[in-house]
Amino acid sequence: MVILGSTGSIGRNTLEVAERYSLSVEVLTANRSVELLNSQIAKFSPEIVVIGEKDLVSKVNHNRVYFGTEGILRAIEESKSPIVVNALVGFSGLRPTLKTLEIGKRLALANKESLVNAGAFLNSSKIEPIDSEHFALWYLLNGREVKEMTITASGGAFRDWDISKIAFAKPSDALKHPNWDMGNKITVDSATMVNKLFELLEAKWLFKPKNLSAVIEKSSIIHGIVSFVDGSTTAHISKADMKLPIAFALLKEISEEIISPVPLTEMEKVSFLPILVERYPIWEIKDELLKFPKKGVIVNTANDFYVSKFLRNEIPFGEISKGVLETFEKFHNREPSNIDEVFDIVKEIESSLK
Amino acid sequence: MVILGSTGSIGRNTLEVAERYSLSVEVLTANRSVELLNSQIAKFSPEIVVIGEKDLVSKVNHNRVYFGTEGILRAIEESKSPIVVNALVGFSGLRPTLKTLEIGKRLALANKESLVNAGAFLNSSKIEPIDSEHFALWYLLNGREVKEMTITASGGAFRDWDISKIAFAKPSDALKHPNWDMGNKITVDSATMVNKLFELLEAKWLFKPKNLSAVIEKSSIIHGIVSFVDGSTTAHISKADMKLPIAFALLKEISEEIISPVPLTEMEKVSFLPILVERYPIWEIKDELLKFPKKGVIVNTANDFYVSKFLRNEIPFGEISKGVLETFEKFHNREPSNIDEVFDIVKEIESSLK
Repeated sequence: MVILGSTGSIGRNTLEVAERYSLSVEVLTANRSVELLNSQIAKFSPEIVVIGEKDLVSKVNHNRVYFGTEGILRAIEESKSPIVVNALVGFSGLRPTLKTLEIGKRLALANKESLVNAGAFLNSSKIEPIDSEHFALWYLLNGREVKEMTITASGGAFRDWDISKIAFAKPSDALKHPNWDMGNKITVDSATMVNKLFELLEAKWLFKPKNLSAVIEKSSIIHGIVSFVDGSTTAHISKADMKLPIAFALLKEISEEIISPVPLTEMEKVSFLPILVERYPIWEIKDELLKFPKKGVIVNTANDFYVSKFLRNEIPFGEISKGVLETFEKFHNREPSNIDEVFDIVKEIESSLK
Repeated sequence: MVILGSTGSIGRNTLEVAERYSLSVEVLTANRSVELLNSQIAKFSPEIVVIGEKDLVSKVNHNRVYFGTEGILRAIEESKSPIVVNALVGFSGLRPTLKTLEIGKRLALANKESLVNAGAFLNSSKIEPIDSEHFALWYLLNGREVKEMTITASGGAFRDWDISKIAFAKPSDALKHPNWDMGNKITVDSATMVNKLFELLEAKWLFKPKNLSAVIEKSSIIHGIVSFVDGSTTAHISKADMKLPIAFALLKEISEEIISPVPLTEMEKVSFLPILVERYPIWEIKDELLKFPKKGVIVNTANDFYVSKFLRNEIPFGEISKGVLETFEKFHNREPSNIDEVFDIVKEIESSLK
């Protein structure tokens, strides 16, 4: 298989699954983590390796090293594997997604930005989501008519904060995620609830259900809930371990223990809370965004800009959602009608924000 | 269809479903509730009617009335319907179950005693269970390998009592079920946890899972939980309304709203508690009974005897489980090897108890 972003959390978990099931690894890519990449090369002997920048090429222990996004696209094109795992972070994951689908490979997709920015222009039938929430929804589908799909949120770093203080929070506050360690960007997106907004958009493109909602489940053992038309509701419960969705995305079906099940007694900890606009101002646009999901590109571009400013300590936490909402309002007439316009809109918004 | 026990709670719900989906009703049977039976006859125009005793025949407004168990068996045999709903209460439901399967009709089974007493000798592939718990388990099956099935219990009338007082409880105490109204016998069986022991036996015969367990879920909105080998666990959540399992048992699959779904906020009420032997002494034999499920006939026969004594106020509540456990111990060498021996063992135990 091809693994884009092999040194990140999803990439490392993917390699663990590959090792366990003796799946061959044809391509590895990393942005800047040369040391870890070299140890992965030694262990998995890929055919092609891609590194983020040209001046790092010489540090990679391999005789076929490409670099940058162009290098990734070339590696996908030259690979023989039928499946590409896209675990890249951010908007730069979109072009590799497009290339993968264009040449007819199957896509195991952890890069949220692909569907958020361009879901309308991707063939979702070729995509296996690598994400606890979308895996949970997929696992619960049983051929019966769905009434509503619900995904859960941990609530992020400020779920228990005094609401009046959240707007003034600093990066050091936001990066304390209550349930697990992730990259900085996604930890901030979890605190603003932008991450869950993006996952709703992904669910929209992947499953096209009539109704979609999200709810806070503090213990993070319930990941997805499906209500069927007949009156039954089913929930997917598991430990938050990415090896489960990764194994299913790679192997389609699997009948051995990937992770141990949640003990029943753990379920006593489950509790649900609504996502309130007072605590998560971005939630104000949830319904409009689900109605006009092509506008995801506006939210994502603005969010990238303001999260970066926040992480550089240039603005307090409250300014992220405020900035995104203002941008969403300002560009409310813009909606891409093809994939090229997605890239145009990104440029347009980026230059307006500078 | 044929509805055995049409005036009881399941029977009445079945008629509601029949009416909604315009299913024709060929046979109605009742034990003694002549008035309700007559109103059902007026509404559903069955071909054959059966009443419990000969001297009630003349009170039934129909020109083809049979009586007693023989009447029920004859009605099943003479009916043209492909499906029989067995909503009879108690051991007397077993012969109609045998007759239904013998002549090749499909059986929608609410009579627990059929599987508890004779599950080993019934073709469960012809049986659709009418029961929230077994319906829940069935609904959750998805073709993947199951590791464990769990059903939930409300905990019965004494779930919150001081344990030291339970043994001395009277019928008036036991008949206050915390979550819903049912017949007296099953309400007592719910308080002793015998009902859940029986449902585990039924699940054993219906689904043959490797592991089976039960847990108290006080809010009674989660009915069944399935843990799969891969590490996923799924739960079935719905209002406790028998129309859901009945509609599926009759129609196999259905894609309209039978009942409204549980609002997500209701799930905040869910909490799990273990079933403790100190509170539910009968739970002591759970593992042995699941290992030797043919011994269900011993437990059921003894339980029928002691519950009747309790309901006549001849013994306190604690004597029910004590008597059943003693009988189970006394007959621990007895296990039926065919259906005739089931009836022999019942007689043997009944005469030893008199």
